This record gives sequence, structure tokens and C-alpha cells, in this order.
Amino acid sequence: MLAMTQPATTPPPNTRAPLAHTPFATRMNGARANFLREILKTALRPGMISFAGGVPAPELFDVEGLQQATERLYNEQAKLALQYSASDGLPVLREHLAALMKSRGTEVDASQMLITTGSQQGIDLVAKVLLDAGDIVLLERPTYMAALQTMSMYEAEFRGVESDEHGLIPESLEDVLNACALEGRKAKLLYLVATFANPSGVTLPLERRQRVLEIAVKHQLLIVEDDPYSELRFSGAHVPSIMSLADAEARQWCVYMSSLSKIVSPGLRVAWLIAPDWLYPKLVMGKQSADLHTSTFAQVVAQNYLELGRLPAHLDKIRASYFERGQTMLKALEREFPKGVLHVNVPEGGMFLWGDLAAGVDTMSMVQRSIDNGVIYVPGGPFFCDSPRPNSLRLSFSTPTCEEIEEGVRRLAQVMVD
Amino acid sequence: MLAMTQPATTPPPNTRAPLAHTPFATRMNGARANFLREILKTALRPGMISFAGGVPAPELFDVEGLQQATERLYNEQAKLALQYSASDGLPVLREHLAALMKSRGTEVDASQMLITTGSQQGIDLVAKVLLDAGDIVLLERPTYMAALQTMSMYEAEFRGVESDEHGLIPESLEDVLNACALEGRKAKLLYLVATFANPSGVTLPLERRQRVLEIAVKHQLLIVEDDPYSELRFSGAHVPSIMSLADAEARQWCVYMSSLSKIVSPGLRVAWLIAPDWLYPKLVMGKQSADLHTSTFAQVVAQNYLELGRLPAHLDKIRASYFERGQTMLKALEREFPKGVLHVNVPEGGMFLWGDLAAGVDTMSMVQRSIDNGVIYVPGGPFFCDSPRPNSLRLSFSTPTCEEIEEGVRRLAQVMVD
Repeated sequence: MLAMTQPATTPPPNTRAPLAHTPFATRMNGARANFLREILKTALRPGMISFAGGVPAPELFDVEGLQQATERLYNEQAKLALQYSASDGLPVLREHLAALMKSRGTEVDASQMLITTGSQQGIDLVAKVLLDAGDIVLLERPTYMAALQTMSMYEAEFRGVESDEHGLIPESLEDVLNACALEGRKAKLLYLVATFANPSGVTLPLERRQRVLEIAVKHQLLIVEDDPYSELRFSGAHVPSIMSLADAEARQWCVYMSSLSKIVSPGLRVAWLIAPDWLYPKLVMGKQSADLHTSTFAQVVAQNYLELGRLPAHLDKIRASYFERGQTMLKALEREFPKGVLHVNVPEGGMFLWGDLAAGVDTMSMVQRSIDNGVIYVPGGPFFCDSPRPNSLRLSFSTPTCEEIEEGVRRLAQVMVD
Repeated sequence: MLAMTQPATTPPPNTRAPLAHTPFATRMNGARANFLREILKTALRPGMISFAGGVPAPELFDVEGLQQATERLYNEQAKLALQYSASDGLPVLREHLAALMKSRGTEVDASQMLITTGSQQGIDLVAKVLLDAGDIVLLERPTYMAALQTMSMYEAEFRGVESDEHGLIPESLEDVLNACALEGRKAKLLYLVATFANPSGVTLPLERRQRVLEIAVKHQLLIVEDDPYSELRFSGAHVPSIMSLADAEARQWCVYMSSLSKIVSPGLRVAWLIAPDWLYPKLVMGKQSADLHTSTFAQVVAQNYLELGRLPAHLDKIRASYFERGQTMLKALEREFPKGVLHVNVPEGGMFLWGDLAAGVDTMSMVQRSIDNGVIYVPGGPFFCDSPRPNSLRLSFSTPTCEEIEEGVRRLAQVMVD
């Protein structure tokens, strides 16, 4: 049974009453287990169809390519791969990732790149290095839930920036920044997913990216651009990263993160972060302190995999499959839900549809009924740092098969359509 | 060129002047790059003999066993290993590690175990969950440098507890706690390496462990027992962990950490932490926020490796080799240093000798000359949270060959003996 009104916590199997003296740090007061990860536990029940996770389809993993990469590790690099390594990451891996960034239209020097244990760690390091309790952080409405959770643990004060079907609205960003200035305060950073956003699926158009960058430079606001999904485009034209639009001065206000989790394997936990020179050394110190370095073994596998040159073909394969799954879900929703009951976006890539039911409907209150009916989704509320929209929900189409998507949407309609 | 008087920082290759506005969190004020990791960079110079790292000998890695473990992963568990997994760690790995703990004489339930990305992350999570700025942390004199660095980042206030050739002195612990009480303050935790300590090499005897535990319970002090080396015993009898001595009540004040880094491979970054029920769920939340979970891939390799049953024979092999290296170093020091110039401990296991030169000698000021003479060590000063002993130094015997150890000690004597 899931808690319906607030994120659930994770009691260990044999919890005793806490001691009279529970000496937790203040930062843990607001800390809660990630609601999404709690919901995902129900996905393991037999017969459950999950639209909840932002998780790659395991049957699409390039197991053969990764096995070749690992064989090379054992043939040529075992002593390196099994040993401690530098906190900033393996030089050859960073070169390969800089080349990948170039193919995305962003020129970076490998020396500005820090290898992280998933982009989750990138978010944590940025927060650790920059945020004092009470510092203002700007987040899209809705925003990525784990970023919200992590920055909460650094006791940030959140301000929401409105977004529409084209993503973050630059005028809202300026309004929020001006409101901060009126209070005599400065916002420290804006965190956003500009391409195929989690959870909304939307992509910020070029002109808005340019405008966001101008505003950031004017207000000395650090942009933290999280980009796990941009290679998963199945229609429309590539939109350059915000970082790639920045000149040398503006680049001082840009942090960019990306990851192999959605395009190769999340189990490896290999991601990267690009930061300006003033910030980079402090992030490396934070990284040392956090886990010394990301698994050398996983880094060497990633490095060899990229060197094999199989990524482009693999991306074609997963793009085609996610496109098919996304289309299947859109068509099923159109078929199963009467016109006007559910409004969803039509994304050009990524893993998510974002939907709104009629105003007044509370998707959180439907979670348990939906689980009982064999399908799970994520209610939209927890994705908002303020004033949640209770009638919203996120549907992921990346993991279930097309047959499961059709059946899952039928089950969802049984719960959501009167 | 190393900075001699204080830990060096890591400027990136193309550092510019920091912006007028450098908005770092207060916690970064005292943050410095780990001095040891800076020294270790010089170890890569051709011909350099390093006594600096606490690093396993790469030629001893059980590459064949790990390759078998990885082949099984690709044959049977690829989809699991490449996918996201639970924040607390893979259940089967935790069962194997609980069995390993049992072989060490400590009964634990796998549900109390959290898999971490190296024990470094364990230290970071404990600090994150428990420490507010200004909280008192007790550390051995000397203590593990990375623990000092990590807890500094959480703005802990340190109090040193004296130790001698048998490790932490219980009377000193009581004195420090009583001094805190007199100030109307409570210490939050004691961090220690009780067996083959880094850096001192000493092992806390059973009666002192019992006494430390009694004191901790009386003063409601959390004991954070870091145990990476206890399997590396080459003489003397096993001493049980502090946690294993605790009854149910005392167990509430015990956290235990260990790792595969020194006994299997540090490149995997697989470690574990055992915590009482009141603390465990908060650590899992911290872990979620830090990196979602430790590399599933590395966890599956570790799990399969343990299942193969090769660890006991591997431990015999590395124990014998580290014993030989340690003996070689002790004999070479006796031969090359005149009687009375250098006093070193004789450890029963682990990777380190800890030495004192004559009072008034400053080992920090000798580092550069020593590097110029082709040998590196770690000066003792940075291992102290207060009042460093400038005439101390740490010598690791785990990585160089016996021939290198003999040559390195000759080079060291050229620098240190007038």
C-alpha cells in the first residue's frame, strides 16, 4: 500500500522505535525517499505493466558490444581497470566523450570534463559545492524529481519557473529573477532539462535557449543543463545545447551534464559533467570526497565501447524502438480515452508523455486503484517544487513492449475514465 | 613542484582568474584537494619508487577469477547487470557479504547492509546524514586523511583522541568526552580504523575495543568503525570487530564499513556499510541522492566473484606477498638507517609502516628532496586533525616489489640520514 498524500519513506524490514536521541543533521529534516523509486518497487509485481520508470528497455542493450568492450579490458587493460584511478576520470574516456559532445555540436576540452557516477552524482556535486542552506534555486515547473530531492537535501529554497508546451518560458524566468532582486536576493542556479525533458517531454526551442542564456549572463545565474535524452530524437531537427550557444563569457555560467545511462547502460553508472574553470576544481574536490572516483572498471568498459564505434548504430536501433513505443502509446490513448479527457504532449524524442486530466482530478488519489488494476504511472504532483498541478501525470513508454503499452493504456482508461 | 607547507590544490590546465562573483557554499571554504592524491601524481614519474599509496599490488589481482565472474555476468545476468538497481544494493551480493562478515566473527543481517561506491562514500553518507556545521567529531591521532577531508566538508569540529602503539587510548577518549560535557556539548561520532590502521598500522586490542564500546554507550557516541584491512593479517590472532562485541543496545551505537578495494579490486568501487535500524533508512536516502546506486555491473561482478569461492585462496596469496614486502621494508630500514634515527611500528597486517624521526625533524620539508631522489612517502602531518607531529611519516609497502623496496629505502636514507 502506497502513501497517497506524500512521498513514502523506506522503513527497513525490522525497524525499531528510533532512539530518544536521533542526532540527524538538519539537512535530513526535509529529506524523503524518492517517491518515484518507491512506486517503481511495485513494478516488480507479476503482471504489472509499468509506465512509471524512465528506464531503458533491457532487451535493447547492446550486450554483444559491451561484451566485446569487456573482453578487451581483460585482454589489455585489466590492471588499469581493477586499480584506483584519478578523481576526474580516465583521460581516454574523456577524449571519447569530448568527441561525442562535438558530434552533438558542443565543443569541449576534455580537461573541463569530470566523470561522475551517474548524472545523479553530477547534480549532487553541483549542489554540494554551491549551495548553502536557504540559497535560491530555480526549477522548471514541472522539473526532474531527483534534482528536487537532491537540492532539498542541501536545504535550497526553490522558486518555480513556468513552462508551456515549448518548455521554460523566458519571461517567467526574468519575472522570478526580478522578484528575487526586489527582495535583495540572488538566485544561485537554474536547473533544467532542455531537450525531451523529464517529466514533460518538451524541448526548448533555439530562440528560447538563446534568451535563457542572455538572461543568465545578465543576472549572473548559473545554468545547470542536464541532457540525458538528446540523442533519443525520433523526429524534428536537432536543437543545440544551451552551452554550445555560449560565447567565452557566457560559458562561465554554463554547466552541462550528460550520461551513458539512457543511451548505453544505466548499470554502468558512467556520466559526465562539463564545468567552467572557476568551478571545475571545486567539483573535483567534492568528487574525491564523495567516492574517490567512478568505477575504473565501468569507465574502461565505457571507453572501449565508445572506441568500438557501435554507438551510432545502437542509437538508431533504440530511437526506432522508442519511436514505435511512443506512437503506440499515443494511438492507444487516443483510442481508449474519450476526446478531451486526457491532454498529452507529442514529444519529438525521449521516453516520456506528460498528461493532464480535467482540472479538479487528483492523479495521486488514483495511484492505488491503478496499481490494483495492474498498471502504474507517476502522478505529476511530486515533479513540482511549488503549487503542484494535481491533475497531471507522467507516462513512460520506454520499457514496456507495444503489446504491454496497449494493454496498459486499456487498464489506465478503466481507472481514469468514468 | 609540490607545495610544502600546506596541501596543494588542483588547478585545471587552463585556469582563468575566478569571477568576481564566486558563489561557493560555505562548506567549501576549508575544502582542499587530498594531499595524498596530489603526492600520488608524482608516483607516475618514470623510475619513481612509491611508498606513498595505500594501493593494492596490481600484479596480485585475481584477474582470472574476476574474468570468470564477468563471463558469468554476460552468460546469465547481462540485462540485470546493465540496468538500474535498488539504492541499497543487490540482495545476493549483500547475502554473500553477510556471509563474509560472519567469517570475520560479526553476525549481520543483509537488510542492515548498504552497498556503497567505495568506503569513501560510506564516510560521506554518514557525515551527510549526521553532521551539522560545528558538530563535534572525534578522530584518532593520527587518523585516515580522507575521513578528515570528507568530514571537513561538512564543517565538523574535530577533537583528537590520543593513540599509542596499541591504537586509540580509551582514557583519552573519556577525557575528550568529559571535556565536551564540561562545555555543555556532545560529540556526535568517533571515526576509527581499529585494525591495521591507516596510517599507523596499529591494531586496537580486544580489551580496548570493549572499553571503547562501553564509553560510547555511556556517552551516546556513535562509533564509525572503518575496516578495510582486517583480512590482511599476516601474524598474530584475529581481533573481533567492535561491532561484533556489541549487545543489542550497544549495537545501536555501531556503524561498520568495509570494502573489496584492498582485498579484491579498488577499481570496482564496491564497499558496504552496516548501520543500526534508526540510521539505515536515512543513509539509503542519502545514497539515492548521491548516485542512485552503486554500479550494478560492478556489483554483479563482485557477487559472482564471491560465489566462485576464490577469495580465501586469493587472500592467502596477497597476505603472503604483503608480509614479505613488509618484512623486506623493515629489514631494509634497519640496515639503512642508523639505530635510533627512525622509529617504526611492526604491524601484524595491512599495508603501512608508521615512523617517527627525531623530534624537531620536519618530514614535510623533506618531501621535495625525496621526490628529487626518486622515492616518495607521505609526511605524517596531514593525518592529524590537530597538533600534527611534524617528525612522523607513513610508508606503504603494498605496491613496490621487494627489489624496489630495498632501493627505495636506500634512497630514503640518503635524504633522511645526515
